[in-house]
Amino acid sequence: MTRPRPLIAIDWGTSSLRGARLGDNGQVLESREFPRGILTVPPGQFESVCHELFGDWMQAPGALCLISGMAGSRQGWQEAPYCPCPAGFAELGQHLLWLQPGRIALVPGLSCTGQDDMQSPDVMRGEEVQIFGALQLSGRDNATLVLPGTHSKWVHVDSRRVAQFQTFMTGEVFALMSQQSILGKTLDLNGAFNEATFLQGVDQSQQAGGVLHHLFAVRTLGLFDRLSAAQLTSYLSGLLIGEELRTQTVHADSDPVILIGSETLTQRYSLALQHLGIACQCHGAEATWAGMFALSSACTHNGPFNP
Amino acid sequence: MTRPRPLIAIDWGTSSLRGARLGDNGQVLESREFPRGILTVPPGQFESVCHELFGDWMQAPGALCLISGMAGSRQGWQEAPYCPCPAGFAELGQHLLWLQPGRIALVPGLSCTGQDDMQSPDVMRGEEVQIFGALQLSGRDNATLVLPGTHSKWVHVDSRRVAQFQTFMTGEVFALMSQQSILGKTLDLNGAFNEATFLQGVDQSQQAGGVLHHLFAVRTLGLFDRLSAAQLTSYLSGLLIGEELRTQTVHADSDPVILIGSETLTQRYSLALQHLGIACQCHGAEATWAGMFALSSACTHNGPFNP
Repeated sequence: MTRPRPLIAIDWGTSSLRGARLGDNGQVLESREFPRGILTVPPGQFESVCHELFGDWMQAPGALCLISGMAGSRQGWQEAPYCPCPAGFAELGQHLLWLQPGRIALVPGLSCTGQDDMQSPDVMRGEEVQIFGALQLSGRDNATLVLPGTHSKWVHVDSRRVAQFQTFMTGEVFALMSQQSILGKTLDLNGAFNEATFLQGVDQSQQAGGVLHHLFAVRTLGLFDRLSAAQLTSYLSGLLIGEELRTQTVHADSDPVILIGSETLTQRYSLALQHLGIACQCHGAEATWAGMFALSSACTHNGPFNP
Repeated sequence: MTRPRPLIAIDWGTSSLRGARLGDNGQVLESREFPRGILTVPPGQFESVCHELFGDWMQAPGALCLISGMAGSRQGWQEAPYCPCPAGFAELGQHLLWLQPGRIALVPGLSCTGQDDMQSPDVMRGEEVQIFGALQLSGRDNATLVLPGTHSKWVHVDSRRVAQFQTFMTGEVFALMSQQSILGKTLDLNGAFNEATFLQGVDQSQQAGGVLHHLFAVRTLGLFDRLSAAQLTSYLSGLLIGEELRTQTVHADSDPVILIGSETLTQRYSLALQHLGIACQCHGAEATWAGMFALSSACTHNGPFNP
């Protein structure tokens, strides 16, 4: 086994940019975060922004820089074509898009094609690294993983390869309904999270009627003073997360679900999952760095780092 | 039977204001429409706006003026408390809120309470008049009625009384997703309606996965160039209308559903309903005037017009 090279891991998303310098065993030596998501970077400026913010790290002899997330999208640094599922470390390594051969690469997202004509394709960018990291951290080869967020992902991993996944627009629908729709008039978005009304929303979402109907209850429960403005926000959150849990078709076994995300979101999903009798375990930002380190190690063994 | 009094029917909604002067047999003698929904009227100014726009009609001897819609909401002229279901003409007449006794009244909306603790209350304002009008026009005593719109209503009428109804936020969710969400980036909202892709969306909505997942297909079908920007708009419309049809729990019999609304919307709902094997018949704005006329006739017989 060759000595690991200095690894710089960068997660460049739509609205934020995070980077970490990792040690020989994958430990985080230093990390940085900037409000410099790809939406803030003019076309053609990605390389200079990257050097401006991480240039000192990249000067280390033999440094390898892996960049995941929306930087590899059509609106990013350069488009890294999706790696089709089923995909594990090996497939991801083979699909790296080298910006500077052997030195800087974009990690591609994953795509999965529906099994029949009626099923639509699905895509992710950035989550794939977190998935492989969480598998490492939990020592699991098979798992259902959930990555809550603007576009929440449910992922089925079989023998350390992503077999299939589904995206849910839960986070974006929550933001739009709470800030832009008529429901916003009766919500207090700064109120404290209320576990009881959150779970009331989860329960309601499991009833007949569908989410387009249940959403209107946020208005009427306010009109009839059944819930306060702060409680209604938790109720809306429960309705939407509950709908996602009810309709996902990825999780089928009895093993604990692996949740990856911010503490706020994984706490809510944990509550809802456990309320519905599904065990789970949580991972945070460390999953990204663990995934990058594992990817770099696997690829160094397999050779594609010398393209 | 007393000779009918001149009837002025006003439908005062959130964003528009429509009025009609009706003849002895309910025929529309004259109608007017203004962009003067309740959102444009400062508190305390409703009476003067009404007289400014309809004062000439109201001077007719013995004229009766009935006003339905959001003018009777908390943000309107005066709050007319909801009339609880089951409710027919008699109940609606008894719950009129008289602004000038015997001359000007607000027609209350309807509320229905869930059958158990888990069911949320539901409300409508303005649609109740259209419902009773469409029943008159179609000669039906029992029916399922659908009123598509920003907040679509599914209504069960039993023996000429509204027994139960459900609201769906379909129109508002369509507007937000197409104009404010990431989906808007790949849509052409001015493109021609495409029946085939609309029905493709309806079909997709009947599949497993749920609407929060299916919505994301609007993005991926665009990313992979499977549908054009104009087709995607019809597809999104089909997805959401299809979800409403799939999850409503009001319609259970085999009689044709009565659709009430604009030509554009009733045409889409007709297509979707017929695609799913449900017969329907359509009514437009005439249902409002027919409902107001029937309400005034019924109430004149029953006496509550002399409060």
